[in-house]
This record gives sequence, C-alpha cells and structure tokens, in this order.
Amino acid sequence: MKQIFFTPGPSELFFTVEEHIKSGLKNNIYSVSHRSNEFKIIYESCVENLNELINIPDGYHVSFLSSANEIWERLIQNLVLKDSGHFINGSFSKKFYEFALQNHINAKSYIFDKEEYSTENLSQTHELLSLSLNETSTGIMCDKEKISDIRSKVNKSLISLDCVSGLPSIPFNIKDVDTFYFSVQKCFGLPSGLGVWIYNDKCLDKYHELKEKKITGTYHSLGRLHKMSLKNQTPETPNVLGIYVLSKVLEDMNNIGLETIIRDTNYKSSLIYDTINKHPELDIFIKNKKIQSKTVIVATTKKESTNYIERLREKGLIIGKGYDSATNQIRIANFPTHSKEVFELLCDELNNM
Amino acid sequence: MKQIFFTPGPSELFFTVEEHIKSGLKNNIYSVSHRSNEFKIIYESCVENLNELINIPDGYHVSFLSSANEIWERLIQNLVLKDSGHFINGSFSKKFYEFALQNHINAKSYIFDKEEYSTENLSQTHELLSLSLNETSTGIMCDKEKISDIRSKVNKSLISLDCVSGLPSIPFNIKDVDTFYFSVQKCFGLPSGLGVWIYNDKCLDKYHELKEKKITGTYHSLGRLHKMSLKNQTPETPNVLGIYVLSKVLEDMNNIGLETIIRDTNYKSSLIYDTINKHPELDIFIKNKKIQSKTVIVATTKKESTNYIERLREKGLIIGKGYDSATNQIRIANFPTHSKEVFELLCDELNNM
Repeated sequence: MKQIFFTPGPSELFFTVEEHIKSGLKNNIYSVSHRSNEFKIIYESCVENLNELINIPDGYHVSFLSSANEIWERLIQNLVLKDSGHFINGSFSKKFYEFALQNHINAKSYIFDKEEYSTENLSQTHELLSLSLNETSTGIMCDKEKISDIRSKVNKSLISLDCVSGLPSIPFNIKDVDTFYFSVQKCFGLPSGLGVWIYNDKCLDKYHELKEKKITGTYHSLGRLHKMSLKNQTPETPNVLGIYVLSKVLEDMNNIGLETIIRDTNYKSSLIYDTINKHPELDIFIKNKKIQSKTVIVATTKKESTNYIERLREKGLIIGKGYDSATNQIRIANFPTHSKEVFELLCDELNNM
Repeated sequence: MKQIFFTPGPSELFFTVEEHIKSGLKNNIYSVSHRSNEFKIIYESCVENLNELINIPDGYHVSFLSSANEIWERLIQNLVLKDSGHFINGSFSKKFYEFALQNHINAKSYIFDKEEYSTENLSQTHELLSLSLNETSTGIMCDKEKISDIRSKVNKSLISLDCVSGLPSIPFNIKDVDTFYFSVQKCFGLPSGLGVWIYNDKCLDKYHELKEKKITGTYHSLGRLHKMSLKNQTPETPNVLGIYVLSKVLEDMNNIGLETIIRDTNYKSSLIYDTINKHPELDIFIKNKKIQSKTVIVATTKKESTNYIERLREKGLIIGKGYDSATNQIRIANFPTHSKEVFELLCDELNNM
C-alpha cells in the first residue's frame, strides 16, 4: 500500500525529490569533487534559487551545515560571548537555550506556555535573542507582525529566527532578523542531513569582534564558512546530494510560486483545524488562533493517541506522535508537498474515526 | 559516455549504491522518523555490519557524525584538555593539528616529510596522539606493524587513527588505537555527508574527566553521542539516507569478504605503481615502498598534470589533481568499487599516453 507521511519531519519527500535524486545518480553528481567547477555551479544555483524563492536582502549570506542542531551550536560559538536570551515555547527552543548553557553562556529563558510572545520584562542587553517562527514540538507559530514588533523594541541584540519547520510556508520579513536557519527534511521535503544558515553583515561583525576573545570553532566557524561560501564552496566535503537536490526543489518551488505555496498552506491548515474542532474525540492543543501553527498542527486525543495513529496507518496515512512522552497527542505536518487532495482525504478519514 | 571516477573522494559510487538509494526511496526510508523503531533497526544493522566487516573488539563503540572534519573537532573538544601530538605527513593531518591550535590546545606537530613515522623525540605526555592510516593528500600510508610499534612505545596517550581513505582496504589492529574514524565517500563509495567515529572506554573515561573542566560540545559531545547510540539513535536528525546506504554497502562488502577486498586492493596498487614506474613521463611521488599508499596513488608528471587528466577524461576515466596547488601531480584512487578490469583499462590508457 502506498503510504503518505504527515509526520513533522522527516516527512513525505517533496514530490519531485525521487526524480532529482535519480538524475543526480545518472549525471554522476555524487562522484564529482567538492572542489570542482561542477560543484561550485551546484552551490551557486542552490543559493540563487533560495534567493529567488524568499528574496534575501543585500548584506545577508548563505552557508550549508549539517543540521539545525549544529546551527544552534555555531550561533552560540560565533555570536555570543556572555549573554543570550531565549523565547521558549516548546522542546526545540528549550534545547537551543540548553546549548547556550552548555557553552557556559549566561543564558536567560523567557517561557511562553502556549501563549503569544511578549517583550515585557525583556532585557535589552542580550547579545543574541532567539525566536522561533514555528516550534515543531508544540505547533506554535509567530506571525510576521509580532516579529516586526519585537524587532522594533530590541535595538542592541542580534535576533535569530528558527525557521526549521516554517520556511517557506510561513512568511516573515527577513530584515526583522539578523540570522535565520532551517533544515531540509521539513517543508522542503528532502532526506535529512542538511542545515541552511543565513546571516547578515552584523553577524559577521560580531564574529570578527569575538574571534579574538573565545573559541569560535574550526572548519565551521562563521568566518571559515563565510570565506568558503564566497568561492561557492564548503570547508569540508559536504552533503553534495542534499545541496544538489535542494537546489532542484527550490527551482520547482519557484515554478509553483511562493504565493501559491503560502495560499495552499493556509487553505489546508484551515481545513484540518476545522476538522479537529468539530471532532468529538479531538481537541486543538493551541487555543489562541493567532499562534496556531499553519505547518505543524497538534491535537489532543480523548483515547490514547496510538489508536488514531494506527487506524490511519491502516489507510496508508502516517501521522506523528506527540513530542517526547505525550501519549494523548497527535501531530500533523502541513508541508508544501502535501496536496489539497491528500489533506481532504486525511480530514475525511479523521471524520470517519 | 560512461565515466569512471578514480578521484580520491568523492569518488566512484560503490557499484551497489544506486540500487540501495532506490530501494530506500521505494520503501520510504527517507521519510521515517529518526525516533521510530524502523530507524533504530537501520542504525543497529549498520553498526552490526561494520562490526562484522572489521571485527570491532569489546569496549569499542560507534557513533555517526557528519564528516571527518567534524570528528577532528569533537576529538579535540572531548579528549584533550591541554596538550596533543600530531604526526603530520600531508595537508589533512596538518589540518587536524590546526584544529587543535584553534581550540587553544598546546598542540605539537611532528613532521614526516615523505618519510616513515618515528617515535624518536616523541613526548610521552600528550593526552592524544594523532596518526593517519592513510594521508589522502600525499598518498602516504602507515602499515599495521608500525602502528603496533608506536602503541608499544606510547603508554599514557590516547591514540587516534585517521582512517578516512584507508578503511577497510588497509588493515590494522584496532586494539593498537583508542579511537579511529572515517568518512563514507572514499573506500565505501557513498555520497558524501556522513562520518563514522569509533572510540573505546578509555575515551569515555577521559571525556567524563574533562567534561567538568571544559566545554565538550552540545548535541555531539561524546557523552551525548554515546548515550543516544546505546538506544540506536543520534542526538539530531541525522543523514538517514547515508546510514541506510552504508549499512547496505557493508552487507555487500561482508558478502565479498574483507580478505578479497584487501587482496584486490594490493593487486591493483601493484599494477598502478608498476605502470607509473615504467612510464617515461610519470614518476612515483613517494619513493619509500613501505609507506606508499595502497588506496591513493600519487604520481608526479613531466608536463602539467591537466594534460594527463584531460586526455584520460576523453576516455571517460576521471582521475584526481594534485592536492592544493600542485600542478605536476595526479592522484588515483584505488577503492573497493574499482574492479581489477577497470584498473587494467586505466593502466593501458596511461601506457598509451
């Protein structure tokens, strides 16, 4: 039976990924040297296609790493000497905060328990303030107006935005943040193993200030990454397959158009929230509509969540468990590869349960 | 025209890789959660297959990272507080030494310029001593007897062995070293983006001693990696495709048998050294037969190396340039996927030039 993955990452592959992986095999892409012109062209295309999709402003730069976990570590190593602030609304934003502590940073957490971000009591002295566009564990998003509002109230801090399960489906104004990042196994529908880090000139300035004062890393210090990126290269032998397939998927997304992707995301999220709302055994986990994620929808379940997960699995529809040990939660990804038709099918099956 | 890559990595894919990547697509391997049982089984199989191939002794453990570059960084972070020693015989061993310096370690280099390792003048107080089974940039290997000899003379240091382009083609006694590592795009013939780190209980002891005294990393500290590996998991969403395909390639290599792989490696390396030796325009770069690499063969060229590289490319045979800016060098990989027949073909074409 054909299976469709609605898990929040790794998830269903973007519908063109299989074809691109095979074209890479046919054209020997995975054998070419990462110091060759062939590779530089792949690197450059990938950055250009990302630029076309999300319109990256001047003064922002792109580097390739291995995961969002790695990018958390690099953010702390390269942009923080003493003090960072972390808006926490789930397990992943909490993990980033813990990474800061493990790096002996005087990190401060601001806990938002299923509620909207607020800048009340926010210190103005954090070197880095960390926000999430979308928190994958709880299904809480932050809309673009709120990010702009925070930017307007925070003058001295660099702002980082975790876009792991948000980009490109949830729009935001890039100029409101100094650095943002994502991994490819969520909305972009790639096999996992690649993280993309975007940073502006202010981040580079901060790195140059810090590199005399602390250990900023080795092959993946921001300075080394940036220097190599100017030559369309990576410091190490990277995940060439990932960079190649990402470039191709971005090209496909550009052909579809970002507006269409966002419009479809909104339509599908309305559909699923409506279905959950009306369902006698399901309840929406995040009540405040303003912060309900459009890409990772979390519902609490009356019976144990495995009941629903297994019954949908029998129909070939794979949905996610609650994060960590939550046994009465399901999580449903709404990513660009999920068509309106498969979402309607999923909602029908939920209605029948 | 079909191309065959003799480049020293990324290189020709192992001949079964295409089939395994496709079976992974067919079976939704790249969509399954990295916290699922399906993934744990893949992880466990990969470790078991590696174990079967190289016979890892008790008290040694396996973790998956992103690259050998990353493993250099983790070795320094987790196993060295103040002092490391580095046997240097090419660009990669030098880079590891530089990583130590960038981590504010009092690192000492021992330079072996195209000569055999020697323990003369070696300090006995290094916390970690770094050796290379095979130095990819210069084509220098270290045979198992020499590694055993060094082990017998170094009592207090942990010994690390860089096996990036050596394993499994060049044999060594695992018990002579405390930790070793490789990346998959060389002898294993996989797409790049995965590094494998093997470490023993002494390394874990050292990590536990150091973690109170310094920053040992976050998601990829040795402690965190090891703790997750006991559950057949990785701390972050890893390169699932890489781990899956590696497991399958290891299974294939076990079917072929390690002895056959090593015997064929030796036959093919004799053939190519003999061809270079007799060639009027080529010269063997490493004269000392005892340290001539069996997996990465380096020759100096009378005319500019591009002459030879381009003429072979016209025949579909892709060989490597000299490392860095060497314009009168060629490098030829002799990996398990290269059959005796394609090596004979390559030697014939070299003879015709």
